[in-house]
This record gives sequence, C-alpha cells and structure tokens, in this order.
Amino acid sequence: MSLIGAPAADDDAGDAGGDAGATALGPTLRRDPLNGEWVAMAAHRMNRTFLPPADANPLAPAAPGAAYQDGEIPAEDYDVVVFENRFPSLLTVPGVIDEVTHPNGQAVWATRPGVGRCEVICFSADPTTSLAKVGPRRMQTIIEAWADRTAALSQLPEVEQVYCFENRGKEIGVTLHHPHGQIYAFPYVTPYTRRMLDQAAEYRDRTGGHLLTDVLTAELEVRTRVVLETEHWVGYVPFAARWPVEVHLAPRRTVPDLPALSDAERTGLGTALLDLLAGLDRFHVDPETGPIALPYIAAWHQAPVRDGRDLARLHLQVFSVLRAPRKLKYLAGSESGMGAWVSDTLPERIAARLREVMA
Amino acid sequence: MSLIGAPAADDDAGDAGGDAGATALGPTLRRDPLNGEWVAMAAHRMNRTFLPPADANPLAPAAPGAAYQDGEIPAEDYDVVVFENRFPSLLTVPGVIDEVTHPNGQAVWATRPGVGRCEVICFSADPTTSLAKVGPRRMQTIIEAWADRTAALSQLPEVEQVYCFENRGKEIGVTLHHPHGQIYAFPYVTPYTRRMLDQAAEYRDRTGGHLLTDVLTAELEVRTRVVLETEHWVGYVPFAARWPVEVHLAPRRTVPDLPALSDAERTGLGTALLDLLAGLDRFHVDPETGPIALPYIAAWHQAPVRDGRDLARLHLQVFSVLRAPRKLKYLAGSESGMGAWVSDTLPERIAARLREVMA
Repeated sequence: MSLIGAPAADDDAGDAGGDAGATALGPTLRRDPLNGEWVAMAAHRMNRTFLPPADANPLAPAAPGAAYQDGEIPAEDYDVVVFENRFPSLLTVPGVIDEVTHPNGQAVWATRPGVGRCEVICFSADPTTSLAKVGPRRMQTIIEAWADRTAALSQLPEVEQVYCFENRGKEIGVTLHHPHGQIYAFPYVTPYTRRMLDQAAEYRDRTGGHLLTDVLTAELEVRTRVVLETEHWVGYVPFAARWPVEVHLAPRRTVPDLPALSDAERTGLGTALLDLLAGLDRFHVDPETGPIALPYIAAWHQAPVRDGRDLARLHLQVFSVLRAPRKLKYLAGSESGMGAWVSDTLPERIAARLREVMA
Repeated sequence: MSLIGAPAADDDAGDAGGDAGATALGPTLRRDPLNGEWVAMAAHRMNRTFLPPADANPLAPAAPGAAYQDGEIPAEDYDVVVFENRFPSLLTVPGVIDEVTHPNGQAVWATRPGVGRCEVICFSADPTTSLAKVGPRRMQTIIEAWADRTAALSQLPEVEQVYCFENRGKEIGVTLHHPHGQIYAFPYVTPYTRRMLDQAAEYRDRTGGHLLTDVLTAELEVRTRVVLETEHWVGYVPFAARWPVEVHLAPRRTVPDLPALSDAERTGLGTALLDLLAGLDRFHVDPETGPIALPYIAAWHQAPVRDGRDLARLHLQVFSVLRAPRKLKYLAGSESGMGAWVSDTLPERIAARLREVMA
C-alpha cells in the first residue's frame, strides 16, 4: 500500500491546533528587531511526544489490531506516507488574515500569524530502518513525494519557500525514532536562503555569473573535495564546510527545485543519495562497537516559490554534529552568540575520509 | 594575588601554535561563498583538552607543589587571571600578512589568515565555584578585566570586534569545568553584529531613531518582559526571544562597549549581574534534586572597534538550551539548515518565571 499526499488542510487544521494546545489563532511569528528575522512562537510544541516506547510509536501503522491504536496512520501497512505535523510551528488557520501588526503600538515590534504548513513524511512502516537502507524502489517513491509536496505546497498563496529535510539521531534532538522527514512550507524566505540570494545577486552584478553554478564548476575543476560523481549528480564537501561532517549533493544541470528534475535526474538522485548515506554511516567508527549510524541533518535547499528563482539552485546539504565517536560539535558562544564559526577539521580531510568509506 | 593581563603575544604565539599542532601559519579563515561569512579553520582544536579529571585541571593554580604541574597558571593562588588560549581559533602570527587570496585562482573562493586573539579569563582559583557565586568584590575585578582587555585588544590594528563571553555547562559543550570565560578578538565584524548594524542603519534612515535604544525604551514602557531594574541597568526578555531561557541586560545610558561604562555603571553592573545569574540558577527545578545550575551562554554584544559604533549599543545576552529538566532545545533542521527559528515557549512566560525566582 502506498499513501502519498496530505489530508485536506480544512479537515485537520483545527484538530491539530486543538490537540496541541495551541490558541485558536495558531502559531504566531514575531520579528526580531535586532536582526529582522521572523521567529515562530509555538509554545504548544513544548508538550510534544518525546521518545515514546515502541508500543506508543505514533508513526507506526495504526489499523484495527495494531499494537498502537492512537497513531497518526490508520493503515495496516504503508510504503511512504505524508501527513500534517500534529505539533506544527506553522499552520494556516481558516479566517486568520496574514497581516503584520505592531504590539502596543511600538514600531520596533512586529508580529503576524504563523501561516504555512508543517508536514511529516514517513520513509517506511518499519520503525527500525533508516533512509540509507530503504532501497532503490522506495527511495524513488520518497523523491517523488518530496517533489510532489514541493509542487503542491508552492501553490498555496501564503507559501514563499518549501523545505524538505530530515533530522536523524538523538544527538540532533529527534523526538521520534521512527524514520521520517519533515516538510516545512514557510510564509517567508528563510534567513539562510535570503543571505544566499543576496550573495548570488551581488556576484551576478559583479561578474555576470551564476554563483552556485560557478561554485559547482570550481569544485569539479579542482576535485580535491569531490566525493561522488555520476551522470547527473555531484557530491562534494564545500570549500568552507563549517560542520565536522558536511557534504553537498547537487545536480549537474542548474535547476531551481525538486519538481524541476527530469525523470533521469530523479532516478540518478536515488542511487547517488543511497551511496552517499551509506558512506556517511561508515564515516565514524567506534573502536568497540564498529561503524556509527551518523546523526545528521539533511536539508534540501530549493529556490523560493517566487523570489530569486533564477539566483538559487537546488542542492542537498547533509551535515552532522558528531566530530568523533562520543564527541559532539557544540554551537557555543562564538557560533550561537555571534554567528562566527570555528571548524575543528578541514574540508579536505572530510572529503578524504568520505572517499575512503565510499570506495 | 591578582593577575590581570595577557602575556605578550610575541612570547606565546609560536608556542601556542606549535603545542596545538597548528601549521606555522596559524589558523586560517575561509569565506563561505554561499553566505559571505568567514569560517575559522582550526583543525588543531580537535585534540584540545576534553573534560580532564580534577588532578589534571589546566586552569588550577600550578605553582611548585601544586597537584597539577602542567597547568597554565604558574601561581599558588590567584584572583582573576587572563591568558591566551592554548588552542586558539584566531592567532596573529608575526610576519604573516593579512591579505585575501583566491585558492586555485577561483574567484568564488577566498581565504585569509585567521589573525586576532583568543584569551581565557579564569573567574576564580576554585574549580568548584561559578560566576554566579564569586561575590561582589571579585565580580568587580572581572568586569574591570573584561573592560581592560576590550580596550587593549581594540588597539591591535588587525582587530575589528572584541567579544567577551562565557560558555557554562556540559550541555553547551564546555571542555573544562573550571569556571572561566573567553575573549575573542575578531579580524572582522561578526555576522550577528553585521546584521544588527544593518537593521539599525535601516531603522535610523527610516525613523531617525536609535534602534537598540528604542527597543529598551519600548520594553520599559510596556514592562511585560522586564525582570530587573536598577539605577543604571535593565534586564528584560526580548520581544522575539528564540531560546527557551533568554534575557538581555542593558545599561540605561547608550554606550558602545564595556570600556565606556562609568564607575557607577560598573558597580551597578556587578550587583545586577549577580542577581540575574542567581535567578537563572533557580529557573529550572528538578523534582528530585532541586534547582538546576543553568547551562548557559553569556554573550557581551559590544560595538565593533571602528565600524558602526554609533549604531551599536552594549548589552549582555544570556541564553540557555535547557527547556526543561533533562530536555534540551536542539538547533535542528529548521534552525541549522535554514536559520528559521521555532521557540517552544513565549517570552512573557520566560519573564514571568524569571520575576518569580528573582523576587
């Protein structure tokens, strides 16, 4: 059985808000006056499900007779399934108008409804597997689901950017072990993407070139950080990698987002991604227990829905905070306080290790 | 005995680099082409001292006869001491010219020496105390040390911004339990500060006002998030607080940095900061073990040395990743991948709790 597609927003929005203890108006965004970024206030998420035992796994099939009757997915089995997050940080509530207000009449403060969508994508009905192990056929279904949901969510008038990602591992703060990803549909262009578009615009003005395409071309010319090459895809550790493990996977052709990929590119992506994820699970080896299933964040960088589509370029960024067995990279005072990053390794070392384990 | 002041850079720079396994050229900075930020590459830090046992504490007094002979501080006792970090991410190496180069002749990549300074400030010779418990007299010495080092490091031609901060607690990634802070002297204006200056410049152009001063005035008018008020200082939870615990401590008078504080403001800061830190250590209570010593980052936001001094405004930001006993806020896919923040609480709730525990 294969379920792809989210339930209608009108049916579930109220329930999701109600179940989660959110106000009738849903989450709100506040603008940080010191840096202009929107921060989602989603206090109902404080009580979200936290590392439940196996018999209370809300992402397991929950058909009549299943072990866990209160799950999200009323089926006996499933292939890949997408549904709305029960504890959303973004939610379009019917009747709520998306407009900016200034609390207490103070010009320095701005707030607006946290419209948008948060979806969950389950990669498998098997709670013990992982994206790296789903196999080629199911991986194709997952890629189709990412592309389909990106296309569908891009049609919503309130959505400015669609973001498919996976948090994996308790070191990343995962609250459910069942293998799953998430899809956020933001009502604004995210700060990271905004800065990338600004850089790309500045670069185009100065050189006439396409920044992200020129970065890929440069990596392919120099080759010291390239870890994977196929007909349609290139994997490389970026020049200024800031995480102890970081790799970017980009299509050779300049495309804005997942829906723009050709069939051949989608097929090639499945193979490349499975190879890359398998390599990452061999990156760190514990002397006692062997290869470590890497805790990681996999982040699909896609062009915004309207803004800067010609400047952006699809790529997947996979990165980890695990710098050695049982040693984490923390975002401490330099990173979290000032945004000033310090790497404890070198991109070329990361690339050399990845080539070794992917050989 | 009171030692304040760092050893001369010329004596120690070579040793620090050599001991730490850095190259003769010291750390380097690489510019991330996707967002324009400088990332320090300091691979020698991978092997830095990691949670040593009590008899190998490098920050304990290490005079002849002391338990640990290989420490950083050759004294029998000390009050407050500042010295260069043995594993620096920024280091000015004599003879190295601070200029940008483009590796492999590729315009998209840029690198430069990681010049600047990383210092450690020990708050006490007692490894079991904390900044919250040092008492008024020693706190005044620490404030003088922060201000003195800011003034001295601001004189170095390669330094653009001085940052005093404290990482506290293993949840923040502290590698030495001995109570200490750090001082970074950056050769560039940090990304966080750059964005704040951009916002402040835009605000001044639009309204004629001073953004950070107007934010403080607004907080004092509305009062819902003010948690501390003294003659010279105001503590408040910011309107768009993004951490589960966050508070800003700002002087009533608009000043750019710590050296600009008057004697009365410095005295008042000591009292206010001790009150605030004591409150933070009562914020979370474990039902079994009682109040939790809060893991936190304390970040002094100071004006850059040259750029935007009239737009910036001194304030201390203290924040924590601890959202409940044994539950951490993680920077997962939304925050780390897109810079899009989700808060699981509300600033007004943080303020209410802080007022309760500081009463």
